[in-house]
Amino acid sequence: MKVMPASEFSLKREVEYGSPEQNEAVQRIIEEVRQDGDAALRRFAQQFDGVNVGDLRVSSAEIEAAYQQVDEDFLTAIREASVNIRRFHEKQMRTSWMDLQGDGSILGQVIRPLRRVGLYVPGGKAAYPSSVLMNAIPAQVAGVPEIVMVTPPATAGVEGIDPHILVAAAEAGVKEIYRVGGAQAVAALAYGTESIPAADKIVGPGNIYVALAKRYVFGAVDIDSIAGPSEIVVLADGSADPAYVAADLLSQAEHDEMASAILITPSEDLANAVRTEVELQLQALPRREIAAQSIRDYGAILTVSSLEEGVDAVNRLAPEHLEILVADPFQYLSRIENAGAVFLGPYSSEPVGDYFAGPNHVLPTNGTARFSSPLNVDDFLKKSSVIYYSKEALLRDGEKIMTLARHEGLEAHARAIEIRLEKEGNRNGQ
Amino acid sequence: MKVMPASEFSLKREVEYGSPEQNEAVQRIIEEVRQDGDAALRRFAQQFDGVNVGDLRVSSAEIEAAYQQVDEDFLTAIREASVNIRRFHEKQMRTSWMDLQGDGSILGQVIRPLRRVGLYVPGGKAAYPSSVLMNAIPAQVAGVPEIVMVTPPATAGVEGIDPHILVAAAEAGVKEIYRVGGAQAVAALAYGTESIPAADKIVGPGNIYVALAKRYVFGAVDIDSIAGPSEIVVLADGSADPAYVAADLLSQAEHDEMASAILITPSEDLANAVRTEVELQLQALPRREIAAQSIRDYGAILTVSSLEEGVDAVNRLAPEHLEILVADPFQYLSRIENAGAVFLGPYSSEPVGDYFAGPNHVLPTNGTARFSSPLNVDDFLKKSSVIYYSKEALLRDGEKIMTLARHEGLEAHARAIEIRLEKEGNRNGQ
Repeated sequence: MKVMPASEFSLKREVEYGSPEQNEAVQRIIEEVRQDGDAALRRFAQQFDGVNVGDLRVSSAEIEAAYQQVDEDFLTAIREASVNIRRFHEKQMRTSWMDLQGDGSILGQVIRPLRRVGLYVPGGKAAYPSSVLMNAIPAQVAGVPEIVMVTPPATAGVEGIDPHILVAAAEAGVKEIYRVGGAQAVAALAYGTESIPAADKIVGPGNIYVALAKRYVFGAVDIDSIAGPSEIVVLADGSADPAYVAADLLSQAEHDEMASAILITPSEDLANAVRTEVELQLQALPRREIAAQSIRDYGAILTVSSLEEGVDAVNRLAPEHLEILVADPFQYLSRIENAGAVFLGPYSSEPVGDYFAGPNHVLPTNGTARFSSPLNVDDFLKKSSVIYYSKEALLRDGEKIMTLARHEGLEAHARAIEIRLEKEGNRNGQ
Repeated sequence: MKVMPASEFSLKREVEYGSPEQNEAVQRIIEEVRQDGDAALRRFAQQFDGVNVGDLRVSSAEIEAAYQQVDEDFLTAIREASVNIRRFHEKQMRTSWMDLQGDGSILGQVIRPLRRVGLYVPGGKAAYPSSVLMNAIPAQVAGVPEIVMVTPPATAGVEGIDPHILVAAAEAGVKEIYRVGGAQAVAALAYGTESIPAADKIVGPGNIYVALAKRYVFGAVDIDSIAGPSEIVVLADGSADPAYVAADLLSQAEHDEMASAILITPSEDLANAVRTEVELQLQALPRREIAAQSIRDYGAILTVSSLEEGVDAVNRLAPEHLEILVADPFQYLSRIENAGAVFLGPYSSEPVGDYFAGPNHVLPTNGTARFSSPLNVDDFLKKSSVIYYSKEALLRDGEKIMTLARHEGLEAHARAIEIRLEKEGNRNGQ
């Protein structure tokens, strides 16, 4: 791993917008689905997945059968993780509120769940049961009455949906599942077909075609943010165990070649020890080629003169994941301004959060932690303002409202007030 | 106004994406600002506004001088409106929280303001002091330490910034103001120049060039939603005063030719009376040509068999503004699923909310109330997850985390846990 002063490092990866050909292909697929509905979905399943799809919807019998195909350890782990994720997200729940005014007026905010949310789940090796939980449970906690999942009917030509995905969906409370993938699945969720009613929001990871399709339908429906490659920054002092630091860096690096794993430390000894440990542990990994390339291209050990300078570097990088492996980690928490998730102390290895503890693993990447948040219950709620003005309040405030409206040249706004002041004033005998 | 059954009506206006020429112009402007900084801003001020800009930043002397140029009524109204807006948005404020586990672990959510927010304010007749309040105050309530405003240095070749805008900004607590407008202002806020540090989020309305520029820089910074034309739906029964209904419909229609004003009612008498009143009141409006075209193209009186059917029609339309003018308006509130702001009863005319009551007037348009919310304090907050796992918790949960990681083929994730279980287990003598 390269070692350099933190002040000389910057991490910038371009956002993937796809080639013109990919964009055209996605646009064509979406328009075909809008036009031909289910027939288009079946055509694309044949064309892209090599599958003749019968029922688009996965039957409850298939979901039940999936439970027979997963082992007990997996089921136990998924169930406990679900409990933890649900508990953490329930703490985020909000309620509608009213502000009762002395003059009889009532102002408020109605907070409601979205009605219908679509969850995209990729096929094959990218089908992560943990992602099903992380995307579906916040929507369920928000109270979304209809959560629907779409996933490809086949992987590399082999028909079928991974039973672990079906089990994770069922455990997260998702029972409406369709075998449709790619841009065509996004189109179906955005505009609806005969079999698949349109949703209000689409979430979940996918390949470039899915990402481009989400971007294309945004506005007709809401979408989540489009995730970039994964990142971890470990801020550590001499008290940290270099083997832990190296293992945690590699757990990000194995994700893909563009993932980034960075150590920031004032300790030269730790820097050297981690460098050695990374090389050592790397050799034993099944995904060592991916991890090695990620470490080479986007990994670094950044030296700082103090942990305070390290914190500044963290805030500049705004990492998706931040581990603080120092003697008293909480003393730095209030100075961390930009990070998706903060892992404190030696036992909070990043996979604890990826899979189990409860907080969401869908996190802002590529520096967007400056202004974005982990996926959370708010992402599945919407608000409406409520204004109930009393006659007393209107008679009191009317002139001021008219002053502002007339200043802005909006006479009809002023008259909507004026006509009431005239009539109500008269009715009052004023 | 045309009258038709609600079931036959649909309102769909296309989102404005600009011409290829407009998009290219915006892209070129942004790249020039990235490259040349302040020099580019001055060049564009000369080219587009016909102004030689001296200091880009508006001095505090200019802001103080602006107070001398606005009249007392305006200042009083702006100040009272600010108090109301601040009060309503303070109710939305949230705090960081912790969930302390029995095993010593701590999970939580840190909630912080964004560091720096840029507010775009258009020049000329589109310069609305009320919009300055509605955009700046929620950011201020959220605790954003740096709120900066940009606005064109001139309108139609006449140099200067409307003093009402400067006063509104000062009243909302905004003291950092730059004379720069258009796509170049958006570029400055997104990427920074010598004089204008980059922001984390850009909010506020603007013309098509500003909207395209916001779309272009999204990702480098956050942006608010891009507003479509304004809309009002009035749901009314025979108890409503037709003059009030007509006045409120016209107050939206005067905004622009694409604004939409719709009455939904089961009362034939009201439908007829409103139709007559709209024609009558229209004649007396200074902006009658705009309002008449809006009413003709996007206005309608929709007849329904019952208020319940009317509520269904409202939810289908998902209007920006909804007025409920019926005998007991609160009885319908819980059935309204999709609306930006709901105005209840005869004294809650829509301009009450536009200017004064406190709720925000930046609202979801074009059906997006299905999944979007009024501008609110959350839009200026970001969250980070916090995970502090205890040794006890890790030893208890480690195997399950490894099960899930290995199932997903992420061996390095499993090993980051395993290496801890081995070492800590041994240290414990387990």
